[in-house]
Amino acid sequence: MAVATQTLEQLCINSIRFLSIDAVEKAKSGHPGLPMGAAPMAFVLWDRFLKFNPKNPKWVDRDRFVLSAGHGCMLQYSMLHLTGYDSVSIDDIKQFRQWGSKTPGHPENFETEGVEVTTGPLGQGVGNAVGLAIAEAHLAARFNKPGHNIVDHYTYVILGDGCNMEGVASEAASMAGHLKLGKLIMMYDSNSISIDGSTDLAFTEDVGKRYEAYGWHVQYVANGNDDLDSIAKAIAEAKKVTDKPSLIVVTTVIGYGSPNKAGTAGVHGAALGGDEVTATRNNLGWEYEPFVVPEDALKRFRKAIDKGAEAEADWNQRFAAYAQAYPAEAAEFTRVMAGELPEGWQNALEPVTHKETSTRLLSEACLNALAPALPEFLGGSADLAHSNMTYLKGIPDFQAGSYEGRNFRFGVREHGMGAVLNGMALHGGLIPYGATFLVFADYMRAAIRLSALSQVRVIYVMTHDSIMLGEDGPTHQPIETIPSLRAIPDLLVLRPADAKETVGSYEVAISERKRPSLLAFTRQGVKNLPGTSVEGTKKGGYVVVDAANPDLIVIATGSELELAVKAADALKAEGKAVRVVSLPCWELFEEQTQEYRDSVLPPACKKRVSVEAASSFGWHKYVGSEGAMVSIDRFGASAPGPTCYEKFGFTVDNVIATCRQVLG
Amino acid sequence: MAVATQTLEQLCINSIRFLSIDAVEKAKSGHPGLPMGAAPMAFVLWDRFLKFNPKNPKWVDRDRFVLSAGHGCMLQYSMLHLTGYDSVSIDDIKQFRQWGSKTPGHPENFETEGVEVTTGPLGQGVGNAVGLAIAEAHLAARFNKPGHNIVDHYTYVILGDGCNMEGVASEAASMAGHLKLGKLIMMYDSNSISIDGSTDLAFTEDVGKRYEAYGWHVQYVANGNDDLDSIAKAIAEAKKVTDKPSLIVVTTVIGYGSPNKAGTAGVHGAALGGDEVTATRNNLGWEYEPFVVPEDALKRFRKAIDKGAEAEADWNQRFAAYAQAYPAEAAEFTRVMAGELPEGWQNALEPVTHKETSTRLLSEACLNALAPALPEFLGGSADLAHSNMTYLKGIPDFQAGSYEGRNFRFGVREHGMGAVLNGMALHGGLIPYGATFLVFADYMRAAIRLSALSQVRVIYVMTHDSIMLGEDGPTHQPIETIPSLRAIPDLLVLRPADAKETVGSYEVAISERKRPSLLAFTRQGVKNLPGTSVEGTKKGGYVVVDAANPDLIVIATGSELELAVKAADALKAEGKAVRVVSLPCWELFEEQTQEYRDSVLPPACKKRVSVEAASSFGWHKYVGSEGAMVSIDRFGASAPGPTCYEKFGFTVDNVIATCRQVLG
Repeated sequence: MAVATQTLEQLCINSIRFLSIDAVEKAKSGHPGLPMGAAPMAFVLWDRFLKFNPKNPKWVDRDRFVLSAGHGCMLQYSMLHLTGYDSVSIDDIKQFRQWGSKTPGHPENFETEGVEVTTGPLGQGVGNAVGLAIAEAHLAARFNKPGHNIVDHYTYVILGDGCNMEGVASEAASMAGHLKLGKLIMMYDSNSISIDGSTDLAFTEDVGKRYEAYGWHVQYVANGNDDLDSIAKAIAEAKKVTDKPSLIVVTTVIGYGSPNKAGTAGVHGAALGGDEVTATRNNLGWEYEPFVVPEDALKRFRKAIDKGAEAEADWNQRFAAYAQAYPAEAAEFTRVMAGELPEGWQNALEPVTHKETSTRLLSEACLNALAPALPEFLGGSADLAHSNMTYLKGIPDFQAGSYEGRNFRFGVREHGMGAVLNGMALHGGLIPYGATFLVFADYMRAAIRLSALSQVRVIYVMTHDSIMLGEDGPTHQPIETIPSLRAIPDLLVLRPADAKETVGSYEVAISERKRPSLLAFTRQGVKNLPGTSVEGTKKGGYVVVDAANPDLIVIATGSELELAVKAADALKAEGKAVRVVSLPCWELFEEQTQEYRDSVLPPACKKRVSVEAASSFGWHKYVGSEGAMVSIDRFGASAPGPTCYEKFGFTVDNVIATCRQVLG
Repeated sequence: MAVATQTLEQLCINSIRFLSIDAVEKAKSGHPGLPMGAAPMAFVLWDRFLKFNPKNPKWVDRDRFVLSAGHGCMLQYSMLHLTGYDSVSIDDIKQFRQWGSKTPGHPENFETEGVEVTTGPLGQGVGNAVGLAIAEAHLAARFNKPGHNIVDHYTYVILGDGCNMEGVASEAASMAGHLKLGKLIMMYDSNSISIDGSTDLAFTEDVGKRYEAYGWHVQYVANGNDDLDSIAKAIAEAKKVTDKPSLIVVTTVIGYGSPNKAGTAGVHGAALGGDEVTATRNNLGWEYEPFVVPEDALKRFRKAIDKGAEAEADWNQRFAAYAQAYPAEAAEFTRVMAGELPEGWQNALEPVTHKETSTRLLSEACLNALAPALPEFLGGSADLAHSNMTYLKGIPDFQAGSYEGRNFRFGVREHGMGAVLNGMALHGGLIPYGATFLVFADYMRAAIRLSALSQVRVIYVMTHDSIMLGEDGPTHQPIETIPSLRAIPDLLVLRPADAKETVGSYEVAISERKRPSLLAFTRQGVKNLPGTSVEGTKKGGYVVVDAANPDLIVIATGSELELAVKAADALKAEGKAVRVVSLPCWELFEEQTQEYRDSVLPPACKKRVSVEAASSFGWHKYVGSEGAMVSIDRFGASAPGPTCYEKFGFTVDNVIATCRQVLG
């Protein structure tokens, strides 16, 4: 095919392909197969449908695009560059996958403007997209007024076989079908190849039928390589179906254009190699040097700049009209989309400091106090609302027909929930929370990690935080869960001891704009302790019971702080100088000055005992080599909570005995 | 309904119900709803179909039963007791959910004979069942001979709405459909109630259609409360379909029989309460005291004892005939089902100690050396066979039509893979392994935890174990992964440094009969180091470079051991007494005597430096308060591996500098 015979559209599509090929080739690393196969659908989507302004990637009413098959990121970088985003220059593309570049090996929202979500771990993007679509539906229901559709955009996804094999995507898709998210449109790049070879090896289900079972509208495009009009027709049709999310199964050839590697796993995740690049150039009639985009093609792509500017200008005008008609709503919309908190929002939490009950019920009180103060605060549980105590009273459910609702019913879909929360947060305008039993953090750990990596304010409300949950037994009792979560970078893990610390934990979680927080709450009742404070909690660690020159420091978190205080009281009665330190959040404590940390944990005092109903893993950092830990380094057991607590050594007597041992 | 009017079958079914009700009531904790609703299907299954011998729960050719909805465990305990298992006496049932009882809050294979797998975390049981059915299919293909069906049993499952919402079950079901596991039969207790209320709140998909899309045979029983014959007919029909797994959607009423709570979420997870128990007794015409089973019912149930003995005797006879015709195969079958290893199996690994390459390629060499030595060794990757290097060369794939194959194509279904591996191991006769990138341990962490809790020999082969994987970037680079896995009780985490340590790691993993092992391997090449050893590896930690009275100890794992050795060499050249300790497996090291541990890490030497390309979380245990850690306490970055390594401080120079700092 000589260039002369290429239509302008073919020229554009091949521009996408060769930018991707050349970038991968230069990096000698990456995934050319997907961009080569999915270039036509991406072109049609961006050229004919996607609403975006390259010069303002943050325009709030833009359509959201998610490349769930994140390994194919050169597709996305190519589109961003070609359509005129400043975030991806041709030099950035030449720096693909290099240290410090704007074009990392998988799309990262925090690195590249125009990338909405961080993908790569397969399936997550589907969940993110469901979250984005939820956010749109909610904000539209909340803010739009008759004649004023200020929130009105679509969420588009390109996903591959890998995403469709992942359970997290299944969970999210089931949720989306239930919620009838009509503005979610996914294009499934069905190329019948995964890393190990043909999908016949492992993946022979009827994907379209499965999505129909979830309640999706499903269409097929038989020739996704050439038939641009059928792709366009399917997208247009999908937009018309307003009460179901849409899946468009687009049959493509992976690595389209490569004469020897197209349609094989060999083109999935490695550079084509010089000879095959040449062969592909010849095969597609591509006469341009590496990284050269033909002028005609670039001109066509760059029409997006004017088109985007117009679209945003139109929206700005419409928003101005809205602001005139509904000034309060417009101000509120502007506030929530900027992620700013209203003045004095913390005041709502103060009354909770006077309550005394389990921290999960204190959490419930916080959630319900925050709900009126922060209308952007919303969430729910993975089918454990009445155990996690996460229901916002008097507020409707978020359901098809009541998208203004703020109580979410995520179903028993922890992993899907996590991915959805990330999408909700990344949309902007919302502060989402999700809940389950602490031990089931394991089910959604990949999504929690992505909350941290993506720098989003997602709040994980995790109850039943120790063996004190009792009879459900070792499958439900967290042991290593808290330590393993503390190990995740940029995640705040908070385990408050009582009412003041619970309030402090929520203050932290809501205030953190670029970090997720995971809050661990008790099932059982706890006492309010003298010496605890909201302010101390916000520092991550602080002195609860003081002794000027302590012989011994007892460090505890959560429900075990009471044991520490009682043990200290007993030892002090004997004349020992014992200090008690509450350490509800290690990460925040580590961020305090060395001076503050040393004032709380004086390095000179090496006799230290930790008390936490969890694995000792990690505690040596604070306890040192001369200390001891009251902890559980085995799986739990099925018995009433207090029995477990006692049998595993969580008694005042045992804490005292351990302290005596350390004191020598 | 007076007792007189009850048929014997109704009497039996109500016996199940009231044992469950009474046990939950006495414990004041538990889940009566499922046992009450699913009692009819359980009765039909156990009475008319299930092949088992109560007096020998370990009979190898028994049918396997999995209660994936593990919270309904009183159903299973009731069945075990009623049909005459010694493991669950009436006193055990009275001890439901109490400390040390045989009847914990969720079914645990390691506590209760007759319980095949540990369930409770929802969806896992479906994956386990797929693994059990895979094991049956493989062993049948391997051992059966014309006229000798010594392996010929079914895997039955009862699962609920919760299981069907979980992605892990979706992944496993897709896998089972692909593999055409005809002897897997699941009964879906469709009661339209989950914990938070009606499934209308969150779960409105067409489950049957979804399973059809997976390639399952799907049937419906409209009245699962009374219509025993329809249940039986459906099971019989399912058995006839040999090329598809079967789902039977059985519509039931949760808490059937409770006049005020049946059909509500209130009966799911709490005792009925005295009044409602009385009302239920009246409603079902149940005149017996708590824990009393009517004699006629017990007699009917206990027929299982003779029936089971006969079934096993018949099998024993058939196995004797098999042993006569195929003595070698019979001996081999007996060996593998006992989980015993053949004499001298380790010898196969010796040649690998002389190779020098990346540890993932060394792992490949070990896998391929073990394959002929251990015919029960089998597994595969979650679509990364060519990255994880897990393919057993010259051995067929395990696929429909080649169940004798030992190479598994799990697809991009990490979580499903983990749950399937647990089932394969729990079946007996197999030593399964599964592979993915180390960072994606997060996707299957809930299954890994259950491997440990269930005490199974599952081997996780995890490659690309650090930032040295390079360009794929932070989504793919493990940072906190290794520490977070070390935190799991009873899981061996092994990170070998070179050929000898890789061989040692496989020796450990294969030898451990009751613990899972997770092996972390490099993408990049490593050097064989003088001083490493297979024996040292098996101790978890040992001295690699010695210094009699060390001034400083450098402790390292995996690929960083080379940096430690080089740094030590440089410092020794300056006259410093530096010891290098390799610590490939913390858990094994902790199991050595105090004397041995002190000989490796003398307590007197407090100047210590750790080197591991991972989070420092947990390292204070070995490094102490005077030491330092060369580690990464942030997310990684997209760049070539060597660039990442250098930028994050993994250079000999930086290790030396850190050592100097510690030496002062």
